[in-house]
Amino acid sequence: MKITLKEIALKIDGEVIGDETLEIYGVSSFYDAQPSDITFASDAKFLKVLDQTRAGAVIVPENFISDDRVSENGVLSEYNVSGSASKSCACKVALIKAKNPKRKFFRILSLFHPPKQPIKIIDKRSVIGKSFINGDDISIGSHVTIENNVTIGNRVQIMHGVYIGDGVTIGDDTIIKPNVTILEHTKIGSRVIIHSGTVIGSDGFGFTQDTVEGNNEKIPHAGFVQIDDDVEIGACNTIDRGTFGRTWIQKGVKIDNLVHIAHNVRIGEHSLIVAQVGIAGSSVIGKRVIIAGKAGVSGHLTVGDGAIVGPGAGVLSDVKPGDIVSGIPGMPHKLWLKVASILPKLPEIRKKIIALERSLALQNLSKNSKI
Amino acid sequence: MKITLKEIALKIDGEVIGDETLEIYGVSSFYDAQPSDITFASDAKFLKVLDQTRAGAVIVPENFISDDRVSENGVLSEYNVSGSASKSCACKVALIKAKNPKRKFFRILSLFHPPKQPIKIIDKRSVIGKSFINGDDISIGSHVTIENNVTIGNRVQIMHGVYIGDGVTIGDDTIIKPNVTILEHTKIGSRVIIHSGTVIGSDGFGFTQDTVEGNNEKIPHAGFVQIDDDVEIGACNTIDRGTFGRTWIQKGVKIDNLVHIAHNVRIGEHSLIVAQVGIAGSSVIGKRVIIAGKAGVSGHLTVGDGAIVGPGAGVLSDVKPGDIVSGIPGMPHKLWLKVASILPKLPEIRKKIIALERSLALQNLSKNSKI
Amino acid sequence: MKITLKEIALKIDGEVIGDETLEIYGVSSFYDAQPSDITFASDAKFLKVLDQTRAGAVIVPENFISDDRVSENGVLSEYNVSGSASKSCACKVALIKAKNPKRKFFRILSLFHPPKQPIKIIDKRSVIGKSFINGDDISIGSHVTIENNVTIGNRVQIMHGVYIGDGVTIGDDTIIKPNVTILEHTKIGSRVIIHSGTVIGSDGFGFTQDTVEGNNEKIPHAGFVQIDDDVEIGACNTIDRGTFGRTWIQKGVKIDNLVHIAHNVRIGEHSLIVAQVGIAGSSVIGKRVIIAGKAGVSGHLTVGDGAIVGPGAGVLSDVKPGDIVSGIPGMPHKLWLKVASILPKLPEIRKKIIALERSLALQNLSKNSKI
Repeated sequence: MKITLKEIALKIDGEVIGDETLEIYGVSSFYDAQPSDITFASDAKFLKVLDQTRAGAVIVPENFISDDRVSENGVLSEYNVSGSASKSCACKVALIKAKNPKRKFFRILSLFHPPKQPIKIIDKRSVIGKSFINGDDISIGSHVTIENNVTIGNRVQIMHGVYIGDGVTIGDDTIIKPNVTILEHTKIGSRVIIHSGTVIGSDGFGFTQDTVEGNNEKIPHAGFVQIDDDVEIGACNTIDRGTFGRTWIQKGVKIDNLVHIAHNVRIGEHSLIVAQVGIAGSSVIGKRVIIAGKAGVSGHLTVGDGAIVGPGAGVLSDVKPGDIVSGIPGMPHKLWLKVASILPKLPEIRKKIIALERSLALQNLSKNSKI
Repeated sequence: MKITLKEIALKIDGEVIGDETLEIYGVSSFYDAQPSDITFASDAKFLKVLDQTRAGAVIVPENFISDDRVSENGVLSEYNVSGSASKSCACKVALIKAKNPKRKFFRILSLFHPPKQPIKIIDKRSVIGKSFINGDDISIGSHVTIENNVTIGNRVQIMHGVYIGDGVTIGDDTIIKPNVTILEHTKIGSRVIIHSGTVIGSDGFGFTQDTVEGNNEKIPHAGFVQIDDDVEIGACNTIDRGTFGRTWIQKGVKIDNLVHIAHNVRIGEHSLIVAQVGIAGSSVIGKRVIIAGKAGVSGHLTVGDGAIVGPGAGVLSDVKPGDIVSGIPGMPHKLWLKVASILPKLPEIRKKIIALERSLALQNLSKNSKI
Repeated sequence: MKITLKEIALKIDGEVIGDETLEIYGVSSFYDAQPSDITFASDAKFLKVLDQTRAGAVIVPENFISDDRVSENGVLSEYNVSGSASKSCACKVALIKAKNPKRKFFRILSLFHPPKQPIKIIDKRSVIGKSFINGDDISIGSHVTIENNVTIGNRVQIMHGVYIGDGVTIGDDTIIKPNVTILEHTKIGSRVIIHSGTVIGSDGFGFTQDTVEGNNEKIPHAGFVQIDDDVEIGACNTIDRGTFGRTWIQKGVKIDNLVHIAHNVRIGEHSLIVAQVGIAGSSVIGKRVIIAGKAGVSGHLTVGDGAIVGPGAGVLSDVKPGDIVSGIPGMPHKLWLKVASILPKLPEIRKKIIALERSLALQNLSKNSKI
């Protein structure tokens, strides 16, 4: 596959500075790119060193030419870009000026790597239960089991080994990757992606104690999981059903790998949950929240809209909207940065205190001896 | 499905205060319940605000009427409950008085949501090896593989995509959820539940170093995993087989999701292991221990009976029976609470020390200048 | 299965001290061994208490007889081992003297527990795509799906429920355990073992923000995962493909269970990654690095050759070759040991500071009062 710079510029509403007829065969990162590749430079770090990429073309910001940080460094003169009027330059590398170069770059990446079109059939090695309602152009891979009363929308793709329990509903254009388990009564929206190994709708971890022997008796889990439109869920996640009512992943949420979401948790729209996070039962995460990798949120807490939880943080109390919380125990991020910088100094601090004590004791001694 | 309050009271050995003929159609939580639902109130938090649920009926403690905390707040007068003798009241909400309302409530939840009865057949799309011995009324879903010399008890349910290795034995009434992997020679008891995505009997992480080049040579894992009666294992767990001998999960243990249990670990009866915990090789966890979420236990340690390990704690040494350990590094819980409250004050503490040093230096200076 | 001591000694280049005709039926650990078992003793801990194992034979170091620590304790006289010349002794337990007894022991363990020979057929319940190229003596279990353009080497074993995506290549003698998911274009070397539940080649967690509403737009992941020869990957791992280019697990790397490896990470030869570790995007781990359980490495970092990261450590900056880093935040291991020993003393330290402040205030007061 090859595309000329002119065609690429058209697709991303950009402007070519250099040879419009240059043919591009692929996309790559700044330092790995070959002369047949296109790459991007979105900030000063790369814009200052455009001569260090071997790429044939670089997507740069719309206002690249007027970037003082760059011109101060003499990069522009080297590239002899004489303004957008001329469109002639002696660049080693061609440029495409466009708004949001990184975003546009990934659009081009999609051009070169279009998602594989699934074969729109139901594999005969799959098992489909009673009262199955399905939209057009669906694809069901091999070794899939779909139980009774399942409804799936148009262009849904269900891959190898997936299990879909009783009464599950799935919206349009959703993709379920191989070896995913979706248990009974889960509700999944449109344009959702669920990656391999993930389990949706397992029982929550809830027990009551037997009054006689103090043993743990299982609480039935009568609730379900609801996943709204445009959610992406990574590999090997576990999302438990509600005890009653729902565990609810709202529109546009993106979840990384190996994340645990307990019963009756709610995650607000467009929040990002990074790998190996755990969220305990009944906690409510707001909209556009970011929870960084390996952080843990205790049960029955509220994390407000727009809050950020730092990597590995242990959140044991509510987080206000917009707050940034880090550390163990969780505390305001700026405070944690100070605490984290002091922790390695604790041995030194301890020595100082001992010295102070001695010094004070000596003073008292000398004072007393005077008397 | 509908059940009258009278019938519900009979099933949980309770007493109706209000209209015994009221028909209940479902169960829900205190604030989500609708007039057709029953809910429960087990402590003062809810008992004081019984007017805030829309539920048709609430299960309350047997001694509700004599609860001083409630009557002090005037809630009883509002409900005009004139004692169990009359059984007449002007309640907005009917009550059922019973021992342990929470536990009884979940019994009723089970009434409304009975476990789905599996179809008692062996799906023809499953593969069963030689010398298979099975009890009555078993259910084997589609796309299951059972290797040779496997024995399973009565009413065992093995769902879609499960793999059962050579020589595995499974007791009565055990349920293996979809896409579980149970490797060779695993021994599983009766009434065990294993949730989806879990792997039982993977090789432990053991290597010896090649003396010539220092490379890592795999140690064969000749042991197995033993899971005793009434154990529940969550989704996407990994429980490694013993190097030799067994990794042993004893009777009544309950394990949450994404937990790692290494080779030759033993977990004692009725212990609770919360999500994302990791237990390293050969450690022995006692009976009725609780290990909270994300905690880690190093290898070759002993955690005594009845001990509690706090969330995210890093346990690097033995824990005595009944002790409560929290924090990183693990320490007595009460001490950790103090340490955790001081950590955010470290910047302030550091300033104080600097002030003390200056103050003392000034004193010494002034003292010296006097001389 | 039984083997005489003479035969065992031949296989491990060892020397029997005792009855060469003794028949051994199994292997076990020092304290669990029965008279029909062989075990090993590699260090003083066990060599001093050889009378405490019930094993029929013990593998001991080549230089056992000259071990002063042992002879000092009179153990040798008890065993009446009169030197290698005589080969006669009154031992309760027979000995085999050999180099590296632990390593040799595991060789014998392999003799008694040879890996199960797979049935070398392609199960008819598996699905194989177009242009499949395969070596000799392969084994493909039931309910496997292999997409188009896949190439696998000689003696490759693919077990129940595995998914192999388009264009995957696998070298000789590699074993893919049940219910593993290997997504398109993954490259796997020879003698690799991938344990159950693991997902190789899931999309990385990458999004760009929509400029209008600030929503997250998925970045396509055009790269792949490359796993070199002699790698072992544990159960329920998630290894994401590169955004472009590769996520690369190099020769001889061993990874435990529930580990997350993000897009474009590189792990150098013979490194060991313990359970529940997470490595964020584009980080580069050197050769022969050890990352202990539950540790986290942030994105775009470099961990140098031979470095060690301690259990649960939070690595937020580069680690130099050979350095040992522990704690949260990550710091030099020896420093962390000191910090960790001081943390439980923080309440006491705080009291000391308050006492110092009071003491100093009193001094100033008394000094002032004198004036």
